[in-house]
Amino acid sequence: MDRISDVSIGPLRDSKYIQCYQVSYKQNGKQRYWDCLRQHDSVGILIYNVTRQALVVVTQFRPAVYMSSNRPVWENSEIFTSGSLNMKADKGSESQVGPESDATAPKYGPSSEGMTYELCAGIVDKDIPLAEIAREEVQEETGYQVKTENLQYITSFWSNIGTAGSKQSLFYCEVTDDMIVGSGGGNQHEGEMIDVLDIPISTIDEFIVDESKKKSMGLCFGFSWFAKNVLPKQKNGQ
Amino acid sequence: MDRISDVSIGPLRDSKYIQCYQVSYKQNGKQRYWDCLRQHDSVGILIYNVTRQALVVVTQFRPAVYMSSNRPVWENSEIFTSGSLNMKADKGSESQVGPESDATAPKYGPSSEGMTYELCAGIVDKDIPLAEIAREEVQEETGYQVKTENLQYITSFWSNIGTAGSKQSLFYCEVTDDMIVGSGGGNQHEGEMIDVLDIPISTIDEFIVDESKKKSMGLCFGFSWFAKNVLPKQKNGQ
Repeated sequence: MDRISDVSIGPLRDSKYIQCYQVSYKQNGKQRYWDCLRQHDSVGILIYNVTRQALVVVTQFRPAVYMSSNRPVWENSEIFTSGSLNMKADKGSESQVGPESDATAPKYGPSSEGMTYELCAGIVDKDIPLAEIAREEVQEETGYQVKTENLQYITSFWSNIGTAGSKQSLFYCEVTDDMIVGSGGGNQHEGEMIDVLDIPISTIDEFIVDESKKKSMGLCFGFSWFAKNVLPKQKNGQ
Repeated sequence: MDRISDVSIGPLRDSKYIQCYQVSYKQNGKQRYWDCLRQHDSVGILIYNVTRQALVVVTQFRPAVYMSSNRPVWENSEIFTSGSLNMKADKGSESQVGPESDATAPKYGPSSEGMTYELCAGIVDKDIPLAEIAREEVQEETGYQVKTENLQYITSFWSNIGTAGSKQSLFYCEVTDDMIVGSGGGNQHEGEMIDVLDIPISTIDEFIVDESKKKSMGLCFGFSWFAKNVLPKQKNGQ
């Protein structure tokens, strides 16, 4: 388990990752405004290792999930009341909260609070077919080399519909142990620290509702889709 | 179908809805930063109308989904290159894009591109039990009066894990036509314009993969959960 320490928050500076804007429009003639977030579309891949009879998922420390789980610690930080949010800020104005600033303040929890279980996934930031992006992500994150034509498109849904409304396209592929060409783990240059995990298909019903493991919605739907569409054929020996 | 017109975008001003911050932390001793979005947790409710043998969903125009679908129209707007994003801005600096500013510019699409099909849902912004918030949302959005104890908790998952990491708790309830006490439609004071729709349970498999209807991930998982956990009992006459 990763060791997380020295947590503090500050205003968002010019961000490569979070870009906000406001849209103005008329709905049936009535003037309206909506605050939006620009976010990439993404692909997710449900991977079934036939050799091991297991679904292949990834786990990683997600700072946003960790902070969300520790919201009472930082919720009342002055950066949310001083009007300095969403502005450029000097490094020096960072607001330190938590153990460092006050020995009596609530403490941030263990890093496990930020660990999530997800499908292998990636953002759509290249003008190539979605299945090709999916293929690259499978190899980069999990170490399996698959062929684009073996990626079965399932469907797409919309995420963050309140703020970003980005599209996630879900694929399914089957792999075997002899398709492993690397250890996975994500893009080291981007600082990704991803672990790969097998979930035996005999345990997926329990896994979906096991709240000791924080899961993405995409994983829950993917597992349910597998249980409905693939598992019955397995049991029938097809 | 709602009529959407006069679409333009501008920098985000002080927002009640989108609040960004940056978290600084050490992961295994290595200094890291992450850009985050503060977002409420939420509840979603899968509603089964036994009288009509249909799942009850809501549809509404989602500005973020509409903008995401029309991204080529506004993507290169100068507000994303001028460094004025994420800052307070005067009303006058709003950047007009689309049909109004240039007759040759790409046009925004029809409002149907922003219509989504979702489970009845709501944010957790009160310190009361989640099931009570769910009960209120069911009545407000769909018009059905249910009892808190009839809301069955299914599980929770994490959404927007890259940026916000908020928790969505999913409930299930069964209703009948005689539990209708209003027309639903959402909170008029908050400007919600929500339509309520029945999806016959005989059609949910097709509905999940029908991409002419944009769906939230929560709906896809909820429908799959129903197909796996409730539908077989229906067929067995239980």
